[in-house]
Amino acid sequence: MNASIQNRYPLAGPAKIEINDVAPRDGLQIETFIVPTGGKVAFVDALAHCGFARIEATSFTSARAIPALADAEAVMHQIERVPGVAYTVLVPNLRGLERALSCRPDEVNLVMSASETHNRANLRMTREQSKAQLLAMIAEAGKAGVPVNVSLSTVFGCPFEGEVDEAEVMALAHGFAEAGTAGITLCDTTGMAYPNQVAALCERFRRELPDTGLTIHLHNTRGMGLANAMAAWQTGVTRFDAAAGGLGGCPYAPGASGNVSTEELVHMFASMGVDTGIDLDRLLGVVGGVSELVQRNVPSQLLSAGPRLRTHQPPGWMAEFFAGAD
Amino acid sequence: MNASIQNRYPLAGPAKIEINDVAPRDGLQIETFIVPTGGKVAFVDALAHCGFARIEATSFTSARAIPALADAEAVMHQIERVPGVAYTVLVPNLRGLERALSCRPDEVNLVMSASETHNRANLRMTREQSKAQLLAMIAEAGKAGVPVNVSLSTVFGCPFEGEVDEAEVMALAHGFAEAGTAGITLCDTTGMAYPNQVAALCERFRRELPDTGLTIHLHNTRGMGLANAMAAWQTGVTRFDAAAGGLGGCPYAPGASGNVSTEELVHMFASMGVDTGIDLDRLLGVVGGVSELVQRNVPSQLLSAGPRLRTHQPPGWMAEFFAGAD
Repeated sequence: MNASIQNRYPLAGPAKIEINDVAPRDGLQIETFIVPTGGKVAFVDALAHCGFARIEATSFTSARAIPALADAEAVMHQIERVPGVAYTVLVPNLRGLERALSCRPDEVNLVMSASETHNRANLRMTREQSKAQLLAMIAEAGKAGVPVNVSLSTVFGCPFEGEVDEAEVMALAHGFAEAGTAGITLCDTTGMAYPNQVAALCERFRRELPDTGLTIHLHNTRGMGLANAMAAWQTGVTRFDAAAGGLGGCPYAPGASGNVSTEELVHMFASMGVDTGIDLDRLLGVVGGVSELVQRNVPSQLLSAGPRLRTHQPPGWMAEFFAGAD
Repeated sequence: MNASIQNRYPLAGPAKIEINDVAPRDGLQIETFIVPTGGKVAFVDALAHCGFARIEATSFTSARAIPALADAEAVMHQIERVPGVAYTVLVPNLRGLERALSCRPDEVNLVMSASETHNRANLRMTREQSKAQLLAMIAEAGKAGVPVNVSLSTVFGCPFEGEVDEAEVMALAHGFAEAGTAGITLCDTTGMAYPNQVAALCERFRRELPDTGLTIHLHNTRGMGLANAMAAWQTGVTRFDAAAGGLGGCPYAPGASGNVSTEELVHMFASMGVDTGIDLDRLLGVVGGVSELVQRNVPSQLLSAGPRLRTHQPPGWMAEFFAGAD
């Protein structure tokens, strides 16, 4: 169990958190520009040296479905395996699992949606079909001795259906936990989550499934990304997905921002005294290179403003104006 | 005392909050384009009909210091006085107070910085000089029977000095409370606040000065605006400054965003079941006109993405693809 940050503050939560940077997969997969393999490898390696607990390095989807990540094997073979970093990869089906396992990932991440319409739109399967497929993959990965994480999309709301029933989310979570998944990620796929909703679901998940690793995956589509992260943290959540530079996004919310930005998540928790394991200055250096990597301007608020204690020189006129005032 | 939102959720806070839209003053004062008086009046009136508890309508600063708000009297004389809305105005000095009082504001808002360097840079006075001036203004406003609010800048950090001592903030707050100010606003002028810091200072303020109205003024410079609002709310804070469209900002953090956007604050708290008094759809209509008002593109994440339950049509191919699947 983690120690708790309480000090003199009325807000309490775990003293240490772990961050999974999903930008190499969740971010690069929707970029118009297809990043060359060398760029992907350099990106993953640069992130690995920032101190991440976990990096979602690529996806073993078919090259037809996601051309941007057609080089998954090459990326996995060329990246440095930095000690202490778990390299996870997204796997959509048994064929992808076979490909993934040949690359020795530290974990495979499976995905389906909590809402029927989003599952059909995103995965072209019914939820029943997806669930059966995921259970088969969990069994296969188990034989290979590779831990599985299941990412459940749209658990805080569906862009087609609206509200999603918490009971349906928990039924899926229980099913996958019983099948032996090591972890489950609750994903706010289109930024519909709000703080007390996040807290309620996280609290229920941790109470009902205390032995299943819980990760929260948040988007900042409606500005609530960090508020939702705080809500999860206050219920004891220690694992967060985030994307360097806030890459990623949702095709159904055009113009809206994507994943919670890793640098802002790290900056907030570090300011609060929470140990994130991440070297923020080093991370900001990586974020500074993201625009060139994806060949478009990726604004980062934190990169523009600087960490909170980066101070500025007072105006030059002040010294003379206030001469003798002290 | 306010009722508390608890329901089934682990996060608790007041069931009702009040929002002060500061965009007409704090936003328009730094725009390059000087909004004509008619535009300002229309903006204030449109906000008033959204249900705000308070609107900071203008500033009685000298026209030389802030040319954009040189028409303060005209604005105050031309706006509609919507019942239930308190119209507050910023006042920098006794001359400004005299001008302001001639316009029958519901409140005057005075300002000084908690940090010496920022006070000198922003107000061209030492803190001692500012404090003396504010005390004189509190006395004058008291004679006129107009309530005073004091906004303390840089209480969560100074862009020149870094950390600001909580004890110095509280000493200023106690001084103004004793002098008879009705309310005090704690301002995160350049977005340096982080959640447990906000919670700690709010908790201390409410404990030590339970009879002084406390407002929190947050910026989103480093992405923490709504997380900080949540932290304040969890300690019982019910009054928030915010700016429609996220107008405003800080000259010392170029490229960074400004005030917490009113629409995102309202959307978050309304999603949580907190009564904000604001008609969000109507407010989004006003926000949609802000770019034209200030003659530059003012992106609003929430306006782009829509409120969380604004659902979308599923892709057209789905019906045929899944025919018979149900």
